[in-house]
Amino acid sequence: MHIDLNADLGESFGRYELGEDRALLQVVTSANVACGLHAGDPLVMRETLTRAVAEGVAVGAHPGYPDLQGFGRRRMDLSAEELEAFVIYQLGALAGFARALGTRLVHVKPHGALYNVAAQEPDVAAAVARAIYAFDPALIVVTLPGSALRLAALALELRVAQEAFADRAYQADGSLVPRGKPGALIRDPEEIAARALRMITRGEVETEDGRCLPLKPDTLCIHGDTPGAVSIAARLRRALEDAGVTVAPLSTFLHRS
Amino acid sequence: MHIDLNADLGESFGRYELGEDRALLQVVTSANVACGLHAGDPLVMRETLTRAVAEGVAVGAHPGYPDLQGFGRRRMDLSAEELEAFVIYQLGALAGFARALGTRLVHVKPHGALYNVAAQEPDVAAAVARAIYAFDPALIVVTLPGSALRLAALALELRVAQEAFADRAYQADGSLVPRGKPGALIRDPEEIAARALRMITRGEVETEDGRCLPLKPDTLCIHGDTPGAVSIAARLRRALEDAGVTVAPLSTFLHRS
Amino acid sequence: MHIDLNADLGESFGRYELGEDRALLQVVTSANVACGLHAGDPLVMRETLTRAVAEGVAVGAHPGYPDLQGFGRRRMDLSAEELEAFVIYQLGALAGFARALGTRLVHVKPHGALYNVAAQEPDVAAAVARAIYAFDPALIVVTLPGSALRLAALALELRVAQEAFADRAYQADGSLVPRGKPGALIRDPEEIAARALRMITRGEVETEDGRCLPLKPDTLCIHGDTPGAVSIAARLRRALEDAGVTVAPLSTFLHRS
Amino acid sequence: MHIDLNADLGESFGRYELGEDRALLQVVTSANVACGLHAGDPLVMRETLTRAVAEGVAVGAHPGYPDLQGFGRRRMDLSAEELEAFVIYQLGALAGFARALGTRLVHVKPHGALYNVAAQEPDVAAAVARAIYAFDPALIVVTLPGSALRLAALALELRVAQEAFADRAYQADGSLVPRGKPGALIRDPEEIAARALRMITRGEVETEDGRCLPLKPDTLCIHGDTPGAVSIAARLRRALEDAGVTVAPLSTFLHRS
Repeated sequence: MHIDLNADLGESFGRYELGEDRALLQVVTSANVACGLHAGDPLVMRETLTRAVAEGVAVGAHPGYPDLQGFGRRRMDLSAEELEAFVIYQLGALAGFARALGTRLVHVKPHGALYNVAAQEPDVAAAVARAIYAFDPALIVVTLPGSALRLAALALELRVAQEAFADRAYQADGSLVPRGKPGALIRDPEEIAARALRMITRGEVETEDGRCLPLKPDTLCIHGDTPGAVSIAARLRRALEDAGVTVAPLSTFLHRS
Repeated sequence: MHIDLNADLGESFGRYELGEDRALLQVVTSANVACGLHAGDPLVMRETLTRAVAEGVAVGAHPGYPDLQGFGRRRMDLSAEELEAFVIYQLGALAGFARALGTRLVHVKPHGALYNVAAQEPDVAAAVARAIYAFDPALIVVTLPGSALRLAALALELRVAQEAFADRAYQADGSLVPRGKPGALIRDPEEIAARALRMITRGEVETEDGRCLPLKPDTLCIHGDTPGAVSIAARLRRALEDAGVTVAPLSTFLHRS
Repeated sequence: MHIDLNADLGESFGRYELGEDRALLQVVTSANVACGLHAGDPLVMRETLTRAVAEGVAVGAHPGYPDLQGFGRRRMDLSAEELEAFVIYQLGALAGFARALGTRLVHVKPHGALYNVAAQEPDVAAAVARAIYAFDPALIVVTLPGSALRLAALALELRVAQEAFADRAYQADGSLVPRGKPGALIRDPEEIAARALRMITRGEVETEDGRCLPLKPDTLCIHGDTPGAVSIAARLRRALEDAGVTVAPLSTFLHRS
Repeated sequence: MHIDLNADLGESFGRYELGEDRALLQVVTSANVACGLHAGDPLVMRETLTRAVAEGVAVGAHPGYPDLQGFGRRRMDLSAEELEAFVIYQLGALAGFARALGTRLVHVKPHGALYNVAAQEPDVAAAVARAIYAFDPALIVVTLPGSALRLAALALELRVAQEAFADRAYQADGSLVPRGKPGALIRDPEEIAARALRMITRGEVETEDGRCLPLKPDTLCIHGDTPGAVSIAARLRRALEDAGVTVAPLSTFLHRS
């Protein structure tokens, strides 16, 4: 039984600090590092990779829409050709720092609106997958089970890691309960740990209406921007390890099919 | 007798088109490609590399200050640490497209104000050289003879290509006559070709006050943004080839000392 | 019989020049000036207003989405609150230069994707109209007849100028034939002038399928970015004047109902 | 005896929050509001003005270099013409929100590197002063006593408010002890209040080497980005009021000479 824990890191920009990167690096096994277009800047990118490497955390790219003011959270209608180029640009920029540090990027997880749009729209998913494949076919694509990006990545024979959220309620169709709705967010650390364990050991999660949904994640998303998030994540990791789950980077257990 | 001809390419941005890239690619042997911070965008970068590869032109990075509105032509007081990170970022971003195209960057030539500041100030030169070295020690650094960047690059055992300007007047100390002054720019195609030939074959140039200045360039800069520039460049290339000079990319004749 | 001729101006940015502003200012009576977010920069804005004032051309704001790389041509999902703030920002910035020149903005015409989205979606239209109203209720809103923006502007008792395109084919429902389709663009100067005259004198236009569509424009859009556009526009203006139409800025004939 | 207390506000940007604006608005009498180029965005600008107006705090513009990543803290070599246009742009953009709220800008205080450069270099100072004068000659210019900007503003008959720093050590020539040096920053709230009182009541301050420097400020700068800054500022305000000093906006006591 293996699981990776991933978090978005390196989202500061210039004078603006965001996130609890140092604390999160003690908990997660994979870092999704912003690439300078929706968040992050060259100095932040370099420091984030340096720290992640020092902590033994695997590094991956977290490309987003080129919209710093909107933090990559609103959709932009880039053509497939543009999107492909913007993703390669971000992978390359981050990989430059990895190379300068003597390491390599392991995975790619799109950010914000791009994550959502690439999960739902085959054209966008295909553009993102093509960009990743063109840049480095050894990269692991982190996405939702059942997403358009998963299909697009598999069509190019890219490795795919399935992501789940232990602190979010699921609907019967496998989608997340939208953030606004009651019960969307689970805050009880015990319950979060129990849900994560059930996903990992039994490959299922209970939906909001009490059904059992098959869900076998390779990686769990750790949110760092809510109060108390880091300590909840630390408790989750301990609970998983106490239950005999190996918490480790994707590359240690995710192999080509 | 060898010479490389280099030009700045890929300086368009979104809707804004700049330069005669297609025509220049017929004449030059090395392309300095803008990396998206002072000019260029991901789509432009990808297209420029694609065309350069198709034409057999060697590709290099043309990093600049992060100032699109100023086109990288005004100095910015970035710290050495910031500058290093901004250069790595740009090298990585462009190299990402090179990698996606199955090719590699060959050289780096800083742009505009960064070219000038790195030629004069040892701290800035050292930061640029460190960035290049950290990213890829096989890259060739294109700079002025006698510049601070040349010294900084040599100190890291980077290969250095000396750049000269056949259409610019030189002062006795080896610097260019500033653009505003009379006689700074040479417009007669015959004279430009003659000056280039003298540089290449005899390793010297006549200064504005009639002295003989030692100058043995590895590469000549071709400006693409003046009217008639492309046809002047084409005549220059023909004149050089007629005189038995091999016009070829830097990597074909510039070897480690 | 009156008509205003408007054109988008001031779309250059830094080193990047776009459009034939000097020539267009000889032909049009209203200038839609870019405000620095999708095109234009402070220097360009100031110069454009200065020239327009010198030529006696009425000036208005041409606000767009904050997306220079996309030239404001792709939709962005700004919330109504954000959009309102972004429009006020652009109106204020441009009005600052008008004030410094001792003149005033007369009209507002949204740019590119914002023009289209505000024509179709009531929420976006309402946000744009609220921004204009909050900034200056004396401003004239230039938009399509039958658009959501027209309704939203009228609801706030803003003056509205109806815009038409003499060089574009119309569909039976009053919308333009999309640019890709055959016959979408009319290139014959005689026909363009004839269509404009029919709109102005008889309040109608012939649709692509030969029907007669009521259309009574206050202003005609002059495109400046197609080859020969300026000379076509000059011929159009002459033809209108020869037919007794007064070509003049909106404020001279558009009064509050 | 009057004094104004000013603070930099509205420096958040998109997802990035900065400063304790709500608390500071309870303490200060003038708000220097960022204008979107070095910090702030349209939404932040609008909200900041709305809150300031609600709290009865006078609003002014805080224009800076167009460099969000550097937070306007590094010098940029804009030409005088460019700088003038960039300042007018920022004044206009912020004034647009003021106008939409039915209020007016009262003062202008340049930000960061622009504040420093305009204090020292007559050309830059003149460009800033010309921009302010062209936009609105009724605006008050906040700057250092003895600065180049003060002279440039007075030459245009602009009103000038002299700014001092109660929590910073002064050198004998009237300049501040640079931040890095020991004793540069005064942290003891009692001492800060005592220094402020001495400035206001006796028109002098003790320099780092124990001399008495004439200094009669119209406004004191309140820094909001250091821990405990707001409570220190609140104590300062109380101490001033207890001593009979009227703490009020500049416009209430600063009149044209």
